[in-house]
Parts: sequence; C-alpha cells; structure tokens
Amino acid sequence: MLDLMQDEVFKAFSTYALIVILKMMLMAPLTTFYRVRRGAFASEEDVAHKSGEERKKLLRTHPDVERVRRCHQNDLENVVPFVLIGFIYTLSGPQLSAAILHFRIFTGSRIFHTISYVGAFHQPCRGLSFLVGLATTVSMAYNVLSQFSNL
Amino acid sequence: MLDLMQDEVFKAFSTYALIVILKMMLMAPLTTFYRVRRGAFASEEDVAHKSGEERKKLLRTHPDVERVRRCHQNDLENVVPFVLIGFIYTLSGPQLSAAILHFRIFTGSRIFHTISYVGAFHQPCRGLSFLVGLATTVSMAYNVLSQFSNL
Amino acid sequence: MLDLMQDEVFKAFSTYALIVILKMMLMAPLTTFYRVRRGAFASEEDVAHKSGEERKKLLRTHPDVERVRRCHQNDLENVVPFVLIGFIYTLSGPQLSAAILHFRIFTGSRIFHTISYVGAFHQPCRGLSFLVGLATTVSMAYNVLSQFSNL
Repeated sequence: MLDLMQDEVFKAFSTYALIVILKMMLMAPLTTFYRVRRGAFASEEDVAHKSGEERKKLLRTHPDVERVRRCHQNDLENVVPFVLIGFIYTLSGPQLSAAILHFRIFTGSRIFHTISYVGAFHQPCRGLSFLVGLATTVSMAYNVLSQFSNL
Repeated sequence: MLDLMQDEVFKAFSTYALIVILKMMLMAPLTTFYRVRRGAFASEEDVAHKSGEERKKLLRTHPDVERVRRCHQNDLENVVPFVLIGFIYTLSGPQLSAAILHFRIFTGSRIFHTISYVGAFHQPCRGLSFLVGLATTVSMAYNVLSQFSNL
Repeated sequence: MLDLMQDEVFKAFSTYALIVILKMMLMAPLTTFYRVRRGAFASEEDVAHKSGEERKKLLRTHPDVERVRRCHQNDLENVVPFVLIGFIYTLSGPQLSAAILHFRIFTGSRIFHTISYVGAFHQPCRGLSFLVGLATTVSMAYNVLSQFSNL
C-alpha cells in the first residue's frame, strides 16, 4: 500500500488534489461569513435568537451569498470529477512532467476561477478559467481511454 | 501501481466511471447553452455588455435552465457515490461478469435518466431510471459490506 | 489488489466511507417523501396526472423540502471531500487507532448533523456537528501534507 505513496506521480496528485479539495471546502465558511455579514439566512433556527419581526427579514436570499454558493456548486461540479478522473489517470502511469502539468494547470485555473467568481470580475475571466479546468480534466480522461483502446 | 491497471475489473470500472463522469460534466455546457438560448443568467457580469433595461430582464430563472441544473445536481448526487462505492467494490475482488453487469446497468440508467429529465418524458421514466441507478450502487455497497462481515 | 483489502486501515475506511455515502444517498428518497407529503414538486411531469388548477398549486417550493435539500447539499459538500481525502490519508499509512478515531468522529458528526438539520434543532447543534466533521477532514489532509514535507 505504501508503494503507491512512494510513486512520484501519486505524490504530486495527492498534493494538488488536497489543495483543490481544501479550497472547495473553504467556500462553506465563506458562505457563512457572507450570510452573517449580509444578514441573509436560510434556516429558521439560525435566527431563533432574534425578535419576531427581525427574524422574517433575515430569512432571505442575498446576491452576494448566492454568488458564493454558485461558486461552491461549480467547485463541486468540477473539482470532484478532477480528483476522480485524476486518480485513474495517475494509476494509468503517465509521465511525471505531463501529469504535473495537468495538475498545476487545473489547480491554477480553479483558484483563478474562485477569485473571478467571488470578485465578480469582468467576463471572460470566470468563463475562461472554467473552460481551462474542464479541458484539463477531459484531457486526462482522454489519455486513459486512448490507452485502453490502444489508439 | 500498474498492477491495478492490468486488472480486468479495474479496467472495466475505469472505463464506465470515466463515461458517467464525462456525461455529468456535459451538463455544465448544456446549462450554458440553455442560459444563452433562453436568455436567463445568474451573474451580473454575464450580462454586462447589455444595456441597463435589458440587463435586468436577463437576470432571471427559466424553467428549462432550472431543469438542466436539477439534472446536473441529480448526477452529482448519484454518479459521485457510484464512482466512490464502485472503486471500493472493484478492490473487493468481485467476479468480472457481475461487476460489468453492475457498471453497465448503472451507466445505462444514468444516460436514460438524463434523456428523460432534459426531455421532460412522462413519469415514471425519470423516476425508474433513478431507482435502477440507486439500486445498482446500493447492491455494490451491500456486496462489500457483506464480505467484511462474512454474511 | 486484494492486498489493500487485507489492510486493517483500508477495511475501516471502506466501512465508514460506505456508511456515510449510503447515509447521503438516503437524502434523495427523503426529499421525495417530503415532496409527496407536502405537495411541493419541481418538474411538470411529476404532476401531469393532476387537473390543470391543482397542477399549478403543486409546482411550488416548501420549507420542509428545501430543508432536506440543503441537508443533502451539505452532505455532498462534506461527505465527498471526506471520502476523497480519507482515501489518500488511508494510503499514507496512519496508525490504525488514529485512523479509526478520525473515521468514527466524522461519521458520528454527520449523522448528528442530519438529525439536527432535518429536525430543525436549536443552534449550535447543526453548526457544531458541521464544524467537527470539517475539522476531522482537515486534520486528515494536514496529516498527509505534513508527511510529504516531513514537518
């Protein structure tokens, strides 16, 4: 079992996978931060300590909260496939340099994606960083599938 | 490490896992397609090039966009568990024929699920395909757990 | 391949991972249960057998349905990272007792989280159980990363 941990590609994969997963998990505290800051909650028990009138006001959606939540959702939709496909790709025995290139481009694209999303940067910042991440993941999947069929 | 890649069950698992993950990832461009086609966007920067009045009109939800997003969400809720449980199931050393049967039924059920969801087919098309996929994943989990406890 | 399955840490990881994934998957039938019970559906084909007037009434959101859906979403955002990071952590060769402690605390925290969320318990029940689960996952990630850099 420790053999896999000695492998350079797997070590690189683990490091970058942990970084992007931790980045994704950061979105939850960030959502809470915006919920408290903007006064926009979703569950009644979160505003139970407030008086009746104020309670109703706080149970609402706010554009800034929704923006962070969409960013979190986009992470789920892209980071999780990257980790799953990246693991299979790592096992398929790619060249270390090619593998690290894939992992770095993906990680960079997702960090830039989060900054452009939360910061509401002008398009196509967010769109492009999303596409770069998508292309990296598809490229890894293509590598594995073409190896299986000996293309 | 390459030992796993020589294993027939793992090769089958990898192939079907990649197919369903790529299918799931396809939902993102499909959402964008419907957003542009129906003129229903979520972020202000996506409509920044429009004039003031038109901008407000385009920041809305549309039933077709929401439908594709629900389908994407349902994929996340089912495809990711399939891949995670399927990997543990693959390592537990199942018979090749039984494993391939599980992978094929799941993959087929999810493709049919997406078609019935996006195409708004009469129920119980979507409901049944969802249940078949769920049952396949639960069956794999049951196989692993019963092996652990020597049932 | 079966070597991994003989490993005690991996066996423990597999068991707890399967439990929390199955728990997460349970949220889908629970959502359907609340949709039917409260009469709050999202897709037109789900209410196609009703008459015109009733159909429109049933296409709505209901706080109880939204609550279960938020709980499901929170599971996706936390259980999936736990399984992915937990797998890498398992491969990094931790002590069996430390590993089982991590897995048990996480599993317990998520079960309590679901009960407090669906049951609308007073805060900080839900908040604390969420934070405990988050801390467990971050602790596993920290273990792996510190091993890589020989801290």
